[in-house]
Amino acid sequence: MLASADTPHAVDLAIHARWIAHPSHTLLEQHAVIVANGRIVDILPSHPARERYAPAETMELDEHLLIPGLINLHTHAAMSLLRGVADDMPLMQWLKTRVWPLEAALLSPRFIMDGTELACAEMLLGGVTCFNDMYFFPEAAAEAAVGIGMRAVLGVTVLEFPSAYAHDATDYLDKGLAARDVWREHPLIRFCLAPHAPYSVSDASFERIQTLAAQLELPIHLHIHETAEEIRRHLEEHGCRPLHRLDRLGILGPQLIGVHAVHLLADEIATLARNNCNIVHCPASNLKLGSGFAPVAELLEQGVNVGLGTDGAASNNRLDILAEMRLASLLAKGASGDARCLPAWQALDMATINSARALGMENEIGSIAIGKRADLVAVRMDALALSPCFDPISHLVYAAGREDVRHVWVEGCCRVQDKMLLHGEKTSNLKNCARLWQNRVSAYLKPNAD
Amino acid sequence: MLASADTPHAVDLAIHARWIAHPSHTLLEQHAVIVANGRIVDILPSHPARERYAPAETMELDEHLLIPGLINLHTHAAMSLLRGVADDMPLMQWLKTRVWPLEAALLSPRFIMDGTELACAEMLLGGVTCFNDMYFFPEAAAEAAVGIGMRAVLGVTVLEFPSAYAHDATDYLDKGLAARDVWREHPLIRFCLAPHAPYSVSDASFERIQTLAAQLELPIHLHIHETAEEIRRHLEEHGCRPLHRLDRLGILGPQLIGVHAVHLLADEIATLARNNCNIVHCPASNLKLGSGFAPVAELLEQGVNVGLGTDGAASNNRLDILAEMRLASLLAKGASGDARCLPAWQALDMATINSARALGMENEIGSIAIGKRADLVAVRMDALALSPCFDPISHLVYAAGREDVRHVWVEGCCRVQDKMLLHGEKTSNLKNCARLWQNRVSAYLKPNAD
Repeated sequence: MLASADTPHAVDLAIHARWIAHPSHTLLEQHAVIVANGRIVDILPSHPARERYAPAETMELDEHLLIPGLINLHTHAAMSLLRGVADDMPLMQWLKTRVWPLEAALLSPRFIMDGTELACAEMLLGGVTCFNDMYFFPEAAAEAAVGIGMRAVLGVTVLEFPSAYAHDATDYLDKGLAARDVWREHPLIRFCLAPHAPYSVSDASFERIQTLAAQLELPIHLHIHETAEEIRRHLEEHGCRPLHRLDRLGILGPQLIGVHAVHLLADEIATLARNNCNIVHCPASNLKLGSGFAPVAELLEQGVNVGLGTDGAASNNRLDILAEMRLASLLAKGASGDARCLPAWQALDMATINSARALGMENEIGSIAIGKRADLVAVRMDALALSPCFDPISHLVYAAGREDVRHVWVEGCCRVQDKMLLHGEKTSNLKNCARLWQNRVSAYLKPNAD
Repeated sequence: MLASADTPHAVDLAIHARWIAHPSHTLLEQHAVIVANGRIVDILPSHPARERYAPAETMELDEHLLIPGLINLHTHAAMSLLRGVADDMPLMQWLKTRVWPLEAALLSPRFIMDGTELACAEMLLGGVTCFNDMYFFPEAAAEAAVGIGMRAVLGVTVLEFPSAYAHDATDYLDKGLAARDVWREHPLIRFCLAPHAPYSVSDASFERIQTLAAQLELPIHLHIHETAEEIRRHLEEHGCRPLHRLDRLGILGPQLIGVHAVHLLADEIATLARNNCNIVHCPASNLKLGSGFAPVAELLEQGVNVGLGTDGAASNNRLDILAEMRLASLLAKGASGDARCLPAWQALDMATINSARALGMENEIGSIAIGKRADLVAVRMDALALSPCFDPISHLVYAAGREDVRHVWVEGCCRVQDKMLLHGEKTSNLKNCARLWQNRVSAYLKPNAD
């Protein structure tokens, strides 16, 4: 509490909501969240809030549920420009015949800027306030995110093979870390190290990445055990499964954000748990590429911290964390045969506080708590498709969709109001820009069309 | 073609669309669908269409994809009033501790009217123009569907145990067939026989249903092999698996619409194929109740006709066939490990022509073809989340959602315009009505709350 009852305290924003999702897994009814300088400074019943605070702006949200901003813990944001170019293909064919050739032909800072901005717009409109990215030209991605007002953790991507961005692992690291230096002070931008995958990064690079992660206190964002085929080939080449090699190289630890983890043996789940690793579950992408079902129930049971990601728009094709929450919950029940598995509150945790913890940002974002940054989403719960409403959290996960997201704040600033991006011209500019890229991508695809 | 080039022919409606989904799995670009007396009378390029026809109403749909009205091949529509009352429970607990007690306390023609109308509104807004229902008081459901202008196939539900609707199997049949007689002539309403499940219907009743189905040429809408537990108990009680008993009773045939079919042995899939049975795949419900994954890839491969259903809102909790299309496609890829499985066009077929075929209505609805009833849906494809757009059918299945449905016609009448039900007051009436039922259901749930 910042103010006494008799002298209303000037603050930036008061959001009065019918329901607020509290980290204790309870709903606060008719409460207000008070925001000053981009942070949550109080949470209290609406009635006293009106007496104690004099906000510059007040939002009255009857029939709305206020939730923490959703976090997309794994994406390749700029791939939004390749949405739908490569459906119905397994991972390696998808990468080799479509994604990598298109990237070789089209990647540029402009592609990254435009694609990331489009992805940010889609994500913000769907209640996502922060994303963990793994792609190229992170300085361009940072500019796009900051331009639209979204929080981002950008990967210092590392690969052994050349791209339009860099020519070898050292070059990737140097360029990525230079970008990090430029954006270091910005409140919305952070970086992590992002070695692509065990099959595309050498031991020497992993060793350097491990040292840098420790020195700079950066998370390591890495694809692991996505397909059975990739594990089979790793066994052939390295004589062991990828996790075993990563363990030997010192990569397993609380700094690891392991993406996918679809194919895990029982002792590998135990290893991930023992090392306090974080896992990103990407259910839609895993299904769409035919990769399989991640053992989410078992991971959660062993205490592994599991967040949610969409993956890129070329393998999903929605950057929609609300849809991933629903799918993760349904799929965990179906795969385990236990309808009690992954209930609604746990799905919300996966999309918020678990992902914040994976990023080392659990004291900054991921829940509606005093002192945290005001990344907030108001979901309107009175659509016909949400009537009647016995439990707003059940509806959030099982019945609502991103179409029900009405307002979004990042760091206390309103970024989506009444389902519209704040700057009206933004939307048509983004559509025009996507159309230009559509023509370029189509021109490239045509000679290969069958 | 109805008219010569020099005398424009008077028709009711011309819909000019950027793309039209043609039954040949191709997209017609810049074509028009011409509607007269509720039927599609021509499909031709927009330019000549403007010369040949003088429509009373013209719709210009740039950036829209026109698809056949979606069909929800299995639901319990009025359960919309129980949306979210029983999450995270397996089927038998869900039925016995929540659904059946609530139904015993609340079922009435009013409950069915109100619940069905709410469900119809949700479905229409999501592009569903026809539903196959299995519930109680079908005469009340018919009234709700006709009131809002939606096509329905209503089940003559049969159970051995009493409900607020009927006291034994004979009573259910008598009442259901009497309702059918009342609604026989209405163009939007049909009936089918709907024995609930092998575990809730006796041999004698199945025999009578089989005779009636043959005499009256009605489909048989029946839950089959939904859970492993149900099959295990059937083995104990009847000495065989349910499909074996149904085969013996003559229920397997092209008139059968078997719902769920999650747990099937290889020879049971062959039996379904050999008998030209139809299957309703309800992926969200099967996952949410922890029932498992239906072998959709195998069913399709053996030539079984598979449509899509949502099931009721108490086990899904969205009556959203677009979402089921996406989930069915993703799940088939994930479960089979083959990313090529169930591509976008096939998912659209499952939600339209396959379901029409199951209902014996493939000459009336299910595709955009001359002579068929004009059940049509315009999906707007220019949202940011659908940009860029390389393939509208890919976007329809993998990226779009019901939020992108803009206009809906049933039998040539516009029922949803600009995302709104045609009669503006309808929406607030429905919300108020849902709130009243919410209070009644909540009052009933309270004493049992823990």
